[in-house]
Amino acid sequence: MAEEAAEQQSGEAAAVVGLLGFKPHLAVPGMKADAAVQFYKAAFGAEELRRVAHPKRKAEQELPLILFAELKIGSSLLLVSDCIDAAGEGGTAAVIGGGISFRLETEDVDAAVKMAVAAGAEVVSEVAEDESGVVVKLKDPVGVVWVVSAAVGNKTLDAEAEA
Amino acid sequence: MAEEAAEQQSGEAAAVVGLLGFKPHLAVPGMKADAAVQFYKAAFGAEELRRVAHPKRKAEQELPLILFAELKIGSSLLLVSDCIDAAGEGGTAAVIGGGISFRLETEDVDAAVKMAVAAGAEVVSEVAEDESGVVVKLKDPVGVVWVVSAAVGNKTLDAEAEA
Repeated sequence: MAEEAAEQQSGEAAAVVGLLGFKPHLAVPGMKADAAVQFYKAAFGAEELRRVAHPKRKAEQELPLILFAELKIGSSLLLVSDCIDAAGEGGTAAVIGGGISFRLETEDVDAAVKMAVAAGAEVVSEVAEDESGVVVKLKDPVGVVWVVSAAVGNKTLDAEAEA
Repeated sequence: MAEEAAEQQSGEAAAVVGLLGFKPHLAVPGMKADAAVQFYKAAFGAEELRRVAHPKRKAEQELPLILFAELKIGSSLLLVSDCIDAAGEGGTAAVIGGGISFRLETEDVDAAVKMAVAAGAEVVSEVAEDESGVVVKLKDPVGVVWVVSAAVGNKTLDAEAEA
């Protein structure tokens, strides 16, 4: 499987790893993700397809903490989150792309990561997300952070988008 | 036909401004845009739909200077450019998003900018691009740079994509 992938590179590679989506992901500092979402609706006609709160957030906390909001702008998608950890907060200035990363949704996270690493990407970390399982954070040669994950509840998303 | 399309949009605001596209745009420092494009092909199965060289680049210069390369990753698009001016080079660390901006293609640049400014966006500059006419650079309340433009040669792009 991995050998096949290596042989078929470039255009066909995407098919091999079952690429499902590519979405820019904006991590907003200062708990202002909700404000950002409201702005994108007003400013650019963004449509909020869904919003997922952080599952570990305690009820007594006043501010909503957005794990991600999925916005549709034109025919493309944008994810918006509150920064939820030290890496998200502190890491913004350290890499090109600042609070923006690129999310790559795939049918096979391992295969996608293997292909990227073979091409020169560096694995930054593996983190577990409650809804999508393991996601892998890569840094590319330019310095952009790519987060490779399984599709995050696309069935739910489709259902909501149709409703 | 245009009116029908406008009426049928999902977000009403988007319909008003005739939103055509939303694309992340990565400005690569150090004349490494070509290397970045090659990497994205190998690492993420990106397909290069087209590439536009900077029209003012002189023939005797050795390095190719990419005004933008348009890549398709999954079903979404990513623009990759060499940094071509002082603002592009030096501005990367100053704003959230670093070398990444969001490009908004619209049927009516003036109307789109007006709506964004009414919602709180700040006009950073207006610059002329040879292929698409005037584009307007905005900064949103989060600090992300949005470049509002007419669609850049989509007819050409469609033709090339089909070929």
